[in-house]
Amino acid sequence: MNIKLIDIREPILKENQATAEQLAARFAEARVFVVNLMSSPGAGKTSLVVKTLEGLKHRMRIAVVEGDVVSTVDAERVASTGAQTVQINTHGACHIDAAMLGRAVQELDLEALDMLIVENVGNLVCPAEFVLGESMRAMILSVPEGHDKPLKYPLMFTETSALLINKLDLMPHTDFDLQACRDAVTSLNPDMRIFEISCRTGQGIDGWVDWLEQRAGGSQ
Amino acid sequence: MNIKLIDIREPILKENQATAEQLAARFAEARVFVVNLMSSPGAGKTSLVVKTLEGLKHRMRIAVVEGDVVSTVDAERVASTGAQTVQINTHGACHIDAAMLGRAVQELDLEALDMLIVENVGNLVCPAEFVLGESMRAMILSVPEGHDKPLKYPLMFTETSALLINKLDLMPHTDFDLQACRDAVTSLNPDMRIFEISCRTGQGIDGWVDWLEQRAGGSQ
Repeated sequence: MNIKLIDIREPILKENQATAEQLAARFAEARVFVVNLMSSPGAGKTSLVVKTLEGLKHRMRIAVVEGDVVSTVDAERVASTGAQTVQINTHGACHIDAAMLGRAVQELDLEALDMLIVENVGNLVCPAEFVLGESMRAMILSVPEGHDKPLKYPLMFTETSALLINKLDLMPHTDFDLQACRDAVTSLNPDMRIFEISCRTGQGIDGWVDWLEQRAGGSQ
Repeated sequence: MNIKLIDIREPILKENQATAEQLAARFAEARVFVVNLMSSPGAGKTSLVVKTLEGLKHRMRIAVVEGDVVSTVDAERVASTGAQTVQINTHGACHIDAAMLGRAVQELDLEALDMLIVENVGNLVCPAEFVLGESMRAMILSVPEGHDKPLKYPLMFTETSALLINKLDLMPHTDFDLQACRDAVTSLNPDMRIFEISCRTGQGIDGWVDWLEQRAGGSQ
């Protein structure tokens, strides 16, 4: 085959790390479990946030930071559940960085929270590079995106500890190979906890919610 | 509702514009029609490239530049059609810039081509900001991503002149509202040419291919 390979390196933003460490210390002091939730656009992050709030809101005090390039569409959906919601508009930036989250957190009373869910900008690339001082990183891969995504966006799959395979209800209408996906993920990240879910049908949500509550409790 | 708004500005890379203008001059001199194809991960860019090559390869001389963070998965699929394929691995960068394309183009004999298709990195944010000296920008939105994407990623929808709504075969299994999507797109970009397609079933591909051939011919 006729393929030429060209590599281009990208400098890594190291100042983000220092800011994230300061945030992590604040979260630890306030005993807030922080989840950084990432995925492609349209994979179902907001739907999962809403389902998670529905499942946990009577068990824990949870706030949400919504990251979007523009608009408050998702924040409005989340706020309608009654959860305190802070919108970050990045205006062009394709990810949230620790400084942005730090500004958003100023709007919250961390002492009055058990959990903070950060819904990152829809992007399978850069958010994986920007740590936010979070307790856990979770990602969603939706079935229609295809099972080859771990091979093409490996950093996201290695830098997260929970993977939610969403839109499982669409499996019969696609050629998504669940075992191939699981194998690819496990070869990149043997410790990845994988949940098979459908926010549409509710399949698998209870398992995720119970596990998340345990993780949050265990870390405090 | 309890929403706070925080805005963060991102500096725009202006040097990219100058490099893109140099590329555009080279493409014009060689009479090559260059398509910059963008979308979220898994929306169907590579499938569309393959379908487009199948439709046009006996009518035009077409090469493909594949942009990926890592891997040659897509390039291998494209090269298997017989088309000359150059792989750009951005190693972390979430978009192709004009300098990267310039290096890739050195591997091609532009004089021997009628069309160059550039498959950008799967990302609905940053690629829209980086002009490549292209003749036309096209984007794919796949049905499972949802009809709200124009509201959330407006730059991509304003900076492209053709929109392919792909995976139309999944419409019955989602709550995608085609008219709402069309209305949102048209309000952002009244001149957008919209194609409703399914790379899986072949629906709408002929219309796209014929239109693309006309556009390419008309610009030369």
